[in-house]
Amino acid sequence: MDDRAIGVFDSGMGGLTAVRELIRRLPGEDVVYFGDTGRVPYGGRGADTIIKYARQDVAFLRTFDLKAIVIACGTVSTTALDILARENPLPVIGVVEPAVRSAVAATRTGRIGLVGTKATIASGAYERTVRELMPQAEVTARACPLFVPFVENGRYQPGDPLVELLVAEYLAPFREAEVDTLILGCTHYPLLKDAIAAYLGDGVRLISSGAACVDTVARLLEERDMKNAKTQGGLRRYFASDSAQDFGALASIFLGEDIQGQAQQIAIENY
Amino acid sequence: MDDRAIGVFDSGMGGLTAVRELIRRLPGEDVVYFGDTGRVPYGGRGADTIIKYARQDVAFLRTFDLKAIVIACGTVSTTALDILARENPLPVIGVVEPAVRSAVAATRTGRIGLVGTKATIASGAYERTVRELMPQAEVTARACPLFVPFVENGRYQPGDPLVELLVAEYLAPFREAEVDTLILGCTHYPLLKDAIAAYLGDGVRLISSGAACVDTVARLLEERDMKNAKTQGGLRRYFASDSAQDFGALASIFLGEDIQGQAQQIAIENY
Repeated sequence: MDDRAIGVFDSGMGGLTAVRELIRRLPGEDVVYFGDTGRVPYGGRGADTIIKYARQDVAFLRTFDLKAIVIACGTVSTTALDILARENPLPVIGVVEPAVRSAVAATRTGRIGLVGTKATIASGAYERTVRELMPQAEVTARACPLFVPFVENGRYQPGDPLVELLVAEYLAPFREAEVDTLILGCTHYPLLKDAIAAYLGDGVRLISSGAACVDTVARLLEERDMKNAKTQGGLRRYFASDSAQDFGALASIFLGEDIQGQAQQIAIENY
Repeated sequence: MDDRAIGVFDSGMGGLTAVRELIRRLPGEDVVYFGDTGRVPYGGRGADTIIKYARQDVAFLRTFDLKAIVIACGTVSTTALDILARENPLPVIGVVEPAVRSAVAATRTGRIGLVGTKATIASGAYERTVRELMPQAEVTARACPLFVPFVENGRYQPGDPLVELLVAEYLAPFREAEVDTLILGCTHYPLLKDAIAAYLGDGVRLISSGAACVDTVARLLEERDMKNAKTQGGLRRYFASDSAQDFGALASIFLGEDIQGQAQQIAIENY
C-alpha cells in the first residue's frame, strides 16, 4: 500500500482526459493535477522551451509527496521524458510507450497511423517505439496543429462543418494508407474521437494516448503493491497557471465532471 | 531630433505587421522588437496573466534606451495600456485609439464592425472609444478566436476552403449588420485581409490596427521633434522568448522581409 498521490501534468486542459480515465480505473487514488494554461500550447514551441517548461511543471508537482508522475502531454512525453525520468527519483510515465503497446496489440495489418502536434511528430519518438516493438509495422504520421486550438475553442463535434473539413484534410493520408489503427498522440484529441471515427469508419481502431498511459499506471501500482488503501473517494486537487475560474469552467469538457471553484492558480515561472 | 530607438512588442509574431508599416513610413527609425513566442497566444488568457506578461515584455524592452513603446498587440492594448502608461515615463502607444480614429474617419454610415481576440472583445475597450469619438455610431463586435492559430499555421490565403468557411462563419454578422468599416483589432489579422475582403466585398473598408497605430507614432515624433536624424537605414533588432530560429523562419510572412539569423532568444520570465 502507498497512500501518496499521483501527480499529473499537461500543457493545458488536455491531460484531464487522462485524469478522467484515472478516476474511472483507480477511483481510490489521490491525484494532483497541474495544467500550464498560462503557457499552453506547447506543441509548436522549440525543444529547449518545452524542456524548460516541463521541468518547472514537475518541480511544482514535487512540492507534493508523490508516488508517481504522469506526463499527460504528448509533446512533453516525446521531447522531455528521458530528461525528466533521469532527474527525478520516482516513476515518470509518459504517453508514448503505452500508446504504442496498445496500437501494436490492436493492429491486424501492421499499418499504424499517428496524429500529434508539430513537436510530437518532429521528435520521431512514436515511430522509434513502434519500430522497437513491431519492426515490420508501417507507420504513417501527420502533425495536426489546428486540432488543439479547435478543441480548446469547443469545436470538436461531428456535424460541425469546420470540424469535418479539417478532419477530412488532416486524415486523408490515413485513409489512403489504409491504416487499421490510429494513435491519438495528444491528450486533446480524444474529444475529436467521434468526428475522427465518422471520417475513418468503424474499421479503424482509435488509441487514446491518455487512456493507454493509465493502463500502465494501474499495472505499475499493482506490480509494486503501491495502490492506495482507499478503493473509492480519492482526493483530487487541480492547479493551473492561468485564471483558475476559466480553468474550472472549461475543465468539465475534458473531465466530464464539474470542478468549478476547486482549482487554484499558481505562478509556474517561480518553480 | 531624438536618435533613441522605438520599442515594439506583441504576444508573438503579429506585431511584425506593425513593424513592417513602421519601416515603410519611418525608414530611418531604429526599432527593437520583442515577440513573446514562448507564451503566445495571449488572447484567451485571463486579465491578470496578460498584465503580468505585458509588464515583463515592457521591462525587457526598457533595458534599451527608448523614446517610445508601441504595444503592437490588440489584447495587451485593451487589457493593460492604462497600467503600462502609468508605470512608464515615456510615451506608450496602443492600437485601440488609433484604429478607432481611422474607423470613425472612414465610415459613412456610422456602422462599424470590430473583430479581435476573446480578451479584446471582452474588454469593451474599442466600443468605449468609439462611443467617445462618435456617440451615434453602431458597433457590431465579435471574437474570432481561431484566426490567430490559423494565421500562425499559415492558413490565411483566399481560396483555402477551411479559411473561407471560417471567415464566412465569423463575419456573417457584419454582412448582416451592413457595416461599412471593419476594425481588425488584432495584429495577426492583416494577413487575412484578402480573404476577409473577398467575403465582405469592396464596399467595406478594413482598418489594420497596427498600421493605424504607426500613423499615431509618426504624428507624435513630428509634433515633438523626436524623429531620428537618419531618414533611411534604421537599425532593427528582433528578440523572441521561444527559438530564435523558428522566429526568423516565420517572421518573413509577417514582416515581408527575410530576417533569418537576426533574431535572438531571451528568457522573458527573468524580467
